[in-house]
Order: sequence, then C-alpha cells, then structure tokens
Amino acid sequence: MNEERWLLPAGIEEVLPPQARIVEGLRRELLDLYASWGYELVIPPFIDYLDSLLTGTGQDLDLQTFKLTDQLTGRLLGVRADMTPQVARMDAHHLRREAPTRLCYLGTVLHTRPDGFAGTRSPLQLGAEIYGHSGIESDTEILRLVLLTLRTAGISETYLDLGHVGIYRGLARQAGLDRVQEHALFDALQRKAIPEIESLVGDFGLTGAPAGMLVALAELNGSDALERAARVLAAADRPVREALDYLRRLAEELNHWLPEVSIHYDLAELRGYRYKTGVVFAAFVPGWGLEVARGGRYDDIGRVFGRARPAVGFSADLKGLLQHGRGLEERYRQPGAILAPWSNDPALRETVETLRASGRRVIQALPGLEPDPRELGCEERLEYGDGRWDVRPLP
Amino acid sequence: MNEERWLLPAGIEEVLPPQARIVEGLRRELLDLYASWGYELVIPPFIDYLDSLLTGTGQDLDLQTFKLTDQLTGRLLGVRADMTPQVARMDAHHLRREAPTRLCYLGTVLHTRPDGFAGTRSPLQLGAEIYGHSGIESDTEILRLVLLTLRTAGISETYLDLGHVGIYRGLARQAGLDRVQEHALFDALQRKAIPEIESLVGDFGLTGAPAGMLVALAELNGSDALERAARVLAAADRPVREALDYLRRLAEELNHWLPEVSIHYDLAELRGYRYKTGVVFAAFVPGWGLEVARGGRYDDIGRVFGRARPAVGFSADLKGLLQHGRGLEERYRQPGAILAPWSNDPALRETVETLRASGRRVIQALPGLEPDPRELGCEERLEYGDGRWDVRPLP
Repeated sequence: MNEERWLLPAGIEEVLPPQARIVEGLRRELLDLYASWGYELVIPPFIDYLDSLLTGTGQDLDLQTFKLTDQLTGRLLGVRADMTPQVARMDAHHLRREAPTRLCYLGTVLHTRPDGFAGTRSPLQLGAEIYGHSGIESDTEILRLVLLTLRTAGISETYLDLGHVGIYRGLARQAGLDRVQEHALFDALQRKAIPEIESLVGDFGLTGAPAGMLVALAELNGSDALERAARVLAAADRPVREALDYLRRLAEELNHWLPEVSIHYDLAELRGYRYKTGVVFAAFVPGWGLEVARGGRYDDIGRVFGRARPAVGFSADLKGLLQHGRGLEERYRQPGAILAPWSNDPALRETVETLRASGRRVIQALPGLEPDPRELGCEERLEYGDGRWDVRPLP
Repeated sequence: MNEERWLLPAGIEEVLPPQARIVEGLRRELLDLYASWGYELVIPPFIDYLDSLLTGTGQDLDLQTFKLTDQLTGRLLGVRADMTPQVARMDAHHLRREAPTRLCYLGTVLHTRPDGFAGTRSPLQLGAEIYGHSGIESDTEILRLVLLTLRTAGISETYLDLGHVGIYRGLARQAGLDRVQEHALFDALQRKAIPEIESLVGDFGLTGAPAGMLVALAELNGSDALERAARVLAAADRPVREALDYLRRLAEELNHWLPEVSIHYDLAELRGYRYKTGVVFAAFVPGWGLEVARGGRYDDIGRVFGRARPAVGFSADLKGLLQHGRGLEERYRQPGAILAPWSNDPALRETVETLRASGRRVIQALPGLEPDPRELGCEERLEYGDGRWDVRPLP
C-alpha cells in the first residue's frame, strides 16, 4: 500500500483551479479558431482495439501504448497514444465524403514513457487534419494553422523545420537498399550519427554518388539546406529532385503567407517515416530543444480502414504550449465574485439569477461558516437597502 | 488480427462531427453555469496509482477499474472509473483551504463493464462538489445544480429520489448486526429481495421491532415514504429519526427552491453506501429506468488523503444527458460557412481574417478539386466585384 496516497505517477499531472481555467480558456479559443477555418470537431474514443490503434504507425507507437485486456472479449485494447489513426478511420470509414474533409480534435493521450524534456506521459493532444487534397495548398493551410495555434497560445517567436520523406526514400531506392538496410540507416540518420552512417554505407557495399548522398543527408539541415542540397544531391533520381523542388515551392508559398516566420530545413529528420508520405515539419520555440508542434503528410493512412486518400495534419500538446505561452494568465483572469447571503428572499434569488446569467460569478454564503469572502474569491457582495438588492464592494 | 479495423469495442463510442459540436456546446454551457455559481474547474489525471483511485470507495469501483502496469515503477495503475476520489484528494492535499471549496470537473472515465441500459463503458463524467460545509444548505445547492444541469441539457421533466444512509446504518446498529451481517443485508436490500431479507433477518436471530423495521425498509419508497416511515420506524433509535427528520427538512427546502420538481424517496437505495455518510440522491427522467444524475454526502472521503472535511456532490454522464435532452441540435446548429477562392490577394486575405475573427466560418477552396460547396457546409461565397470582396449567396 502507498502511504502517500496523494502522489501522482511520474509524468501524470492533475490541473488545479487557476491553471485549469487557463487550459479551458485556451482549449475553447483554439477549437473556435479551427471551427472558423471550417474544421469540424471529432471525439475519438479513449481506448480502442490495439490493432486499430497501431495500424500503419509502426513500432514507436506500440511501445508508447498502454495495453489493457477487454473483460468482455478477452481481446487486447490500447489506450490511445496518438489520435491520428483514429481520426483517419473516421474519415475513411464513417464519414466517407467525396469532398475534402477538415477535422480537428483535442483530448488526453497517454504514453507508457515520458516524452523528452517535458517529461509528460499525458499530453493534452490537439490537432487538425485535411483529408482529400494533395498539394502545396493543403500543406500551406495546415502550416498556417500551426503558426496561428502557437500565436493564439501566446507564443510569438517560432521557427519551422521542414523535411520531406521522399528525399531519403528516393535515395535509399536509388542506392538499392533493401528494407532492413533502409531501416538500419534510418535509425542512424535520426541520431545524425555520421561515423555510423559511413560505416553502414560501406557495409552495404555502396560507393560513389549514392553512398556520398546518403552520408551527406545527415548534414543537410539549417536555413540554407535546400541550396546546399541542390549541389550535394544533384546526381539524385527524379523523385528526390521533385521532393526538393516541392519543398522550395512550399517555402515560397509560406513566405507569402507567413513572412515573419523563419524557415529551417532538416532533410534527415523523418519522424513518423513509416507512415508519412511527403512533407514533414516541426515548429520550435527558440531556446527550447523540443518541438512544440509537429506534423506532415500521410496519404496512405486510411488504406487499412478501406479508403486511402491524401491527408495532411499537425498535432501539439496544449499543456506543452502553456509552458511557453505569454500573457495567458492575464487573458483568462476571472473578475472577482459576488457574495450573496443565504436567504429565501425571492428578490435576492432573482437578482442572483440575473447576475449569473450575465456571466458574473455569485457565491452563496453557507450558514454556520464565516470565511473571509476574499478567501472565496469575492470582491463584492449583495446588500439589501432601499427595497432592493445591490452589488457593493466588500467593506 | 482484426479484419474489421473500424470496429469499436463494445460500449466505447467515437463522436462524429454534428454530434461532437453538440457535446462541446453543452460542455461549455455547463462549465460556464458551474463557474457562475463559484465552482472552480479541476482536471484530475486520467490514470493514477490504483490505491489512490480505490481509496474508501470499496469493491464496486475496483471491479470497474481497468488496471495497468507502470513501466517506470512496476506499480499498478488504474484508469479512473470515477473522479470523486481524485477531486477529494485535491481538496484534502493540494488545495488545503480553510474556506468552503466548490470544485467542478468534466472528463471521460472508463469502466471495464457496461453500465446498465445505456451500455456505455466510457461515460463523459461531469460533476460538482462542495467541500467544507455540512448541512441542508450545501445539500440544497448541489441539488439545485443537478436540476439546473438537467434543464440546461434540455431535460425539463425530472424527479428526484432521496435517501439517507443514516437510516439503514442506524437500524443495523440498533439490531446489533456485525459487519458481515450488515453487508449481506445491504446486498439483499439493494435488490429489494424481500423474502431473502426476511430469511436473513431470521438467520441473524432478530425479532420484534428491529427485525420488522429492517424488513419494512425495503418497501419504504415512493412520494409518501417519509410519512409511512414516521409510523413504521417509530421505534427506531435517535440517529434514524434524525436522518428522517433531516430528509423532511431538506424536502421542504427543495420545495421552496424547486417547486416544480417532484420528490420521491427510496430509503433502501444506498448506492455508494460504503463511502456515503448522509443524504443520497438520484435524478430520473420519466420512462427511463436508470438515473441520469446521482450523488450524495461523503464527509469522510478526504481522510485517507490527510484531511476529512464535509463533502457533498453529484455526477452525471454528459453523453447520457444528450440522449434525453430536447432541442440541443437546434441550439448548437452552426450557420452555413462561406467559401473563399484560393488566392494570394491581400484584400481577400484580410476579408477572410475579419470574417473568421467575427465568428464566421470561412472555408478556403483547394485547387484541383471542385466539390459542391454545399457538401462542405457552405451557403455563401466570397466574390470579387467593384474593387472589393463581398459575401454573396451561392448561385
């Protein structure tokens, strides 16, 4: 037995009053923002059959997913560690619309192990996705929404990191890597472990341009990476050059819509490589090594649910955004409450109801207790005089 | 492997677009209602150490709680099946205020088995609680809030069922029942299994008034139960008579505040008997056998977290309320959206931003697709003419 029953498991947070109001305020503002862009709210289930949750997402998510046994069927359930597969299922199976579909969501996901610096195992995941359109325009819309999300959360200074899974995928194909080799090299690339990459490329018997390009990829990051890539990857096959060209055109479009945002590239950053199919991106706050939002294109994700169509989206942790946002406490500060005496007077009751309906907080005194009204958050009180109840400042 | 990956586990629901907007709309309205009464929002964690979750709540909740192993510590975690113990911990350990504290919450809880008729295993639990006051006034405030919650959810016709755990507890003590006997009889009472109750009372060697009163208790329900109890339980000890008197005074107070609500009694209805300490109640919709909200007084719940103080509260399933609410679809209906062409024109961009900031939904067309704008939910579109962009009805 736990002697300290108030202890929370590591990485699991409760949110107490003043902070919970900020979470709720930002939650509403973001969902209203997405609604004003035409994104429809969906609420994916908290648990699901494990094979639905892990569909197409690979082993990373499997390790992060808490497993449960369904007492009704004996089958394995999982607690959602990411909502994207569930939202893809809604688009592919339940909505089945012809027109492009914009969906957004917000809810807790659980991870078996803490994420990076923030150390949470229960992010409040929010996200928005477009199904049914492939191209610069839907990528741009999602990236604009990422930046607006951050700005709404009080994060003004950000930069974007862009990549494209088609670059590594194309280079691996050009070099004739098999699946096992491709994944081994992928792992080394994620760690930017250049000696290991060089040694793997040698082990695979690669030489010349294909070998050189795979090694060079690990260093193709920064704001000038596309220019360097044009030279370093000049000998690449057409899909690779097309992916580079796509990034160039996307950056131009972003520059038009978001001239204030600086754009970096990381052509070896391939988070979600196994299910991503095009652009991948992350948004960063200067001085904080972890991304605050991320996403990309995953055109095939609906296939296992019966219908693959183009998809692009982003996600972020609302509680993570709150750590970096400025001015939120001020923005969501509540005005002081009004103390009302406990009384059966119908006139008082009517006054209280009117005040509450107008958005004021009215707290009724509870007989037998005489707390300081300021401890209850009250700054005013209802007083009777001249035949009516009036709001007056506390004495 | 599951061939039908879109199947959801039994009792686990996803919420799709039009319905999700209604859930969100009602969610906000209820949280705003509680805030206007001075209830502060808290967000309890989704998982917790199992012994924190099950503290003082008894075996029913244990069976309903999904168990997980914490990979970081090897300890047993539970997915919350009820948020009351977590909120009690916040009051007792983290807030530790002297003044009475009003807290509210709203979030998904999970149950290993479906609840009653509704059959859900993932209620969207909402609730409100007052800590630090014992008496008719806090009970009345919570019951007023129950009725306002139902009315806000579009449920106008309801009745309340009141009980008091002090009645059975007092009769059991008066009859000299030991713990095992008390629990055996409690189980039979919950099922109103009168022959079984009679046989148990005989087995315990009870005769005369104590035996008769325990048997009679099973039938003390209905709107006249208090009057009948005054006769049938006339020989009961003082705590029982005090509990009856308390219910009578509470009903009078409720009658004053909520004259339109009919009040029934069920003196053998003891849901949560193990941790309840005073009044217990449930709210019903005519023609639906299960309660739509329930609650009561549980003055000792904070003790294991270091500080017992009086507590009364209620909870309900927001998705359950939606099944009975009327007029919600209409109330939360969105006005049609506006289609904007994909264009770089700064004047268009400004018009779109202004419309969105004013609360309108503007959906940007995605080049390469020509869906029927009505399929996107649009009723108007932005058109250029006379040097500016105007909103016009769709042709």
